[in-house]
Amino acid sequence: MAPAGRRRVYVVGAGPGDPELLTVKARRILKEAEVVVYDRLVAPEILAVANPAADLVYAGKREGEQETVQAWILEKLVEQANAGRLVVRLKGGDPCVFGRGGEEVRRLRELGVESELVPGLSSAIAVPELAGIPVTFRGVSRGFAVVTGHCPSNDSPDWASYARIDTLVILMGVGRRDSIALALIAAGRDPEEPVAFVERGSTPEERVTISTLEEVARGNVQAEAPAVFVVGRVVNLRCELLAALEPALAFPDRGIPTPEFR
Amino acid sequence: MAPAGRRRVYVVGAGPGDPELLTVKARRILKEAEVVVYDRLVAPEILAVANPAADLVYAGKREGEQETVQAWILEKLVEQANAGRLVVRLKGGDPCVFGRGGEEVRRLRELGVESELVPGLSSAIAVPELAGIPVTFRGVSRGFAVVTGHCPSNDSPDWASYARIDTLVILMGVGRRDSIALALIAAGRDPEEPVAFVERGSTPEERVTISTLEEVARGNVQAEAPAVFVVGRVVNLRCELLAALEPALAFPDRGIPTPEFR
Repeated sequence: MAPAGRRRVYVVGAGPGDPELLTVKARRILKEAEVVVYDRLVAPEILAVANPAADLVYAGKREGEQETVQAWILEKLVEQANAGRLVVRLKGGDPCVFGRGGEEVRRLRELGVESELVPGLSSAIAVPELAGIPVTFRGVSRGFAVVTGHCPSNDSPDWASYARIDTLVILMGVGRRDSIALALIAAGRDPEEPVAFVERGSTPEERVTISTLEEVARGNVQAEAPAVFVVGRVVNLRCELLAALEPALAFPDRGIPTPEFR
Repeated sequence: MAPAGRRRVYVVGAGPGDPELLTVKARRILKEAEVVVYDRLVAPEILAVANPAADLVYAGKREGEQETVQAWILEKLVEQANAGRLVVRLKGGDPCVFGRGGEEVRRLRELGVESELVPGLSSAIAVPELAGIPVTFRGVSRGFAVVTGHCPSNDSPDWASYARIDTLVILMGVGRRDSIALALIAAGRDPEEPVAFVERGSTPEERVTISTLEEVARGNVQAEAPAVFVVGRVVNLRCELLAALEPALAFPDRGIPTPEFR
């Protein structure tokens, strides 16, 4: 195939799951796509947005096969782009938040294929927000950190540093939640610190579990992966914000008068 | 006005500036809006997406007048929602990343008005990404923190903690960049650590300044607010990623053959 026929690969963030939370750009590119190579965390509702004529190629990785699958994915992207097809590499959330988006862009360049990053809503921020937990809140949290719980044991995050940040969002950390909670407590985080696990965030099947760091460390808290694991006092805002966001709870009597403006 | 005529207020994130980086949901709601109360950081290109018949109400805050304007904004939102109009409270980036989104939702509830949060792309992640700087990258950064540089002096972030996180993204920190850089170095961050300031990110007028923490601390680095201030080794990836993302740089000779797949 002549270089003129080559297409760029769009490395696109699909956001947290709700197809309305795709960006306008991501949706446009998906509708034009001829090949969509997608990850395990991409919801079927998102794939339903893609051009119906596009080839949908599953590229999920299981524990232990990451590197084999990664090489196969790159081979597929290069082959399809060189065949002149419009290729979308679709990832849950944002492609540069533990998505290997930057890594794939760099490899594609080494392999002679142009690419473009299209940011998506990161689940680290949007999923707590939609569950009534703002990652920052004046007087409660001046900042937040996002970290992966899924690291080789010889290269785990410096939990002592993360323990000191107001709001901590851990992605891919559900399976190791007990040891992460223990590490944070060992690093000085208050064992009574509230935590939330938000499963299937942004979808009608959302499930939220609220507890404390200590209970998680003791192995008393159930949660199913994938879930967003949030640690910090902002979790306590959930009741107030949810009541505001879910009118059925906040306004059981729809006839109540509007309070005076204070 | 009867409660039945009341409308909810949508607290919407506008993303980093490019209108194609609005979410599909944000765009839909903007096109239906009857009143849009918008912040200083919302680009004219974003406002151009709104229903042409909508009232556009500017609600930017200058130093020292935050609280007065905040009270006025809430009064406006309540008044318009109670008048039965579809109200959008539009904020740059994501409403819960230093946007007072959570705070406004809580206050609206206290004032008897329903609201809904609509997440947007946070500039903290999307702006560096579009400039070729991924906030995480395997082997370089296992996590990132986002913090505001705009705090009362008696309530500034614990820079010693933030200094220890692989990638640090500081929003609203351009005006205090020298003292922030000094605080990070004092807390043990390598003075040679690369930094980037990305102004007008996601727009054709994007401007990126690359330097080191030490040069910033010495007052040698110019940058204009608003800009996203990034600290960490991921900044070094920019050259490689940009070359991949900007084909004119990467492929001056369009006739080069595709390398063999390795």
